[in-house]
Amino acid sequence: MTTKRILSGMRPTGKLHLGNLHGALKNWVNLQNENNYECFYFVADWHALTSDYGDTGQILENITDMVIDWLSAGLDPQKSTLFVQSKIKEHAELFLLLSMITPLPWLERNPTYKEMKEELTNRDLSTFGFLGYPVLQAADIIIYKAHGVPVGVDQLPHVELTREIARRFNFLYREIFPIPEPLISDVPKLLGIDGRKMSKSYGNSIFISDTGDELSKKIMSMFTDPQRMRKTDPGRPEICNVFSFHQLYSEEESIKEIDVECRRAGIGCIECKKRLAARITEGLKSVHERQEYYRSHMQEVSDIIEDGNARAEKIAKATLGEVREAVKI
Amino acid sequence: MTTKRILSGMRPTGKLHLGNLHGALKNWVNLQNENNYECFYFVADWHALTSDYGDTGQILENITDMVIDWLSAGLDPQKSTLFVQSKIKEHAELFLLLSMITPLPWLERNPTYKEMKEELTNRDLSTFGFLGYPVLQAADIIIYKAHGVPVGVDQLPHVELTREIARRFNFLYREIFPIPEPLISDVPKLLGIDGRKMSKSYGNSIFISDTGDELSKKIMSMFTDPQRMRKTDPGRPEICNVFSFHQLYSEEESIKEIDVECRRAGIGCIECKKRLAARITEGLKSVHERQEYYRSHMQEVSDIIEDGNARAEKIAKATLGEVREAVKI
Repeated sequence: MTTKRILSGMRPTGKLHLGNLHGALKNWVNLQNENNYECFYFVADWHALTSDYGDTGQILENITDMVIDWLSAGLDPQKSTLFVQSKIKEHAELFLLLSMITPLPWLERNPTYKEMKEELTNRDLSTFGFLGYPVLQAADIIIYKAHGVPVGVDQLPHVELTREIARRFNFLYREIFPIPEPLISDVPKLLGIDGRKMSKSYGNSIFISDTGDELSKKIMSMFTDPQRMRKTDPGRPEICNVFSFHQLYSEEESIKEIDVECRRAGIGCIECKKRLAARITEGLKSVHERQEYYRSHMQEVSDIIEDGNARAEKIAKATLGEVREAVKI
Repeated sequence: MTTKRILSGMRPTGKLHLGNLHGALKNWVNLQNENNYECFYFVADWHALTSDYGDTGQILENITDMVIDWLSAGLDPQKSTLFVQSKIKEHAELFLLLSMITPLPWLERNPTYKEMKEELTNRDLSTFGFLGYPVLQAADIIIYKAHGVPVGVDQLPHVELTREIARRFNFLYREIFPIPEPLISDVPKLLGIDGRKMSKSYGNSIFISDTGDELSKKIMSMFTDPQRMRKTDPGRPEICNVFSFHQLYSEEESIKEIDVECRRAGIGCIECKKRLAARITEGLKSVHERQEYYRSHMQEVSDIIEDGNARAEKIAKATLGEVREAVKI
């Protein structure tokens, strides 16, 4: 059985929320614990500049916060290599080289490019770097000769672009890069406490690091079935965000009970949320313990990142050696 | 008197011709010999990829050939820093960072971009890297905090773009970069032996390295005044390419004599060219001596490049340190 290399990254948005935990991190942890995978996870701080070049003050702090959340969620630095993109200069060099062979129309047709430009209207995103961020992503991935890239469905066009760029390099110069496969995992649908998509910028997130009163308060303020105005109204668990969380954090039997009782107004939302708060507190217990540990061992966090950077750099340097030889530059 | 830093580069096209010598190199040598300038000249091998990514086989050899021509033309490695762009990885890192702040329309409006795309129709230049090469140029220049950039008039829009990008960085983050000034020098109009623009790709060049029979043969085949079919026809020096060369290589008195004798058919083109061949041979004597020296001391050439790279890298690393601190990444 040959080992396959897995690569994924996140922009340093700072503290992560339960949407991140269940949408990506749990999957990262699962992959790390499979024997035939060698996992590389990176903080995409250069990518943060594509949209936040005008306000970079938070990036350094966000990196540390995010890595602590990674470790708290169960990423094991003995098994996974955790590193910071901008520390591995070879990403920039490969980005430059791949720029030369990437046709402009591939980037202009990128659906996410159009989408993000429309969405983030408060910032000027008509920059060269923003157009080219799939090229940087391609460099991030293939520099480690990754075989698999765990992504959400919305990221599929980028992986496709990475595959095209890798193929083009292999065709023009030499077969250096494996063509990476997207690894799509089922992502439970978790909304923010106000019923919109959970997003840090909406201020509706339950953070991985939320504990005690803070956690309870957020859960108690969660939107439920809007048609259930009174405790005596029957509810519809299938459209209730609190119920979605129960499905992740409660026991099979308890979920069934809530399902039945909610529909016949046998349990009120307050009681239902109290149970959820208890379940999430229980469910995140080990996460919060690790969190506390790392928050009081910041030097260890720095060392983990340093060590990950060194491991990543070694591979990146070796790849660039091959690349330069192939490009004859 | 403060020292001003000068920066310029050339793509590694291989052996240089007299057009390059009089159009740029002589100017580089002059600048190097002025006391208040500190000169950095680099081989733009990454730039070569913007148009030649599909055929890179010649680049390494071209670098050596070109640097030998630089040295032969009189660049003194004790006075000027001669280096190879792709050895200084910080150019790629700054290129990436500047990408993030460079508005796309600045690049799309670049007249040289449109022009080159129309000119080089045999290659597909609709690449991300080709669109972005002024960003790479900006990085090349400002990473050394250059004050002056010797360029031809056709390169002015690029220097303007570099200035804009430098200003934008200074505005967004911190005043790190001086705004470089273009240094435009008078360039004598020298055509190729067939009367078209002297260009390696036209096969009409007199190379700096041409000597003896090769040099004479090329000069003897030069186009002159097309209306002067016979030796007895009067000629028009002002439109004769051979005369342009005389103006550069012959003595004042001799130029005057040829001017008069040509107009009254007192001297034939063959005689005129023979004299020119002798003058150019004489004029390039020291160039050819240095050429011969370096061709038989290739290790010294490598050492000069290594040394230049080390000098350039030290400055580039220091600048990137400041840049990272300013961008907070």
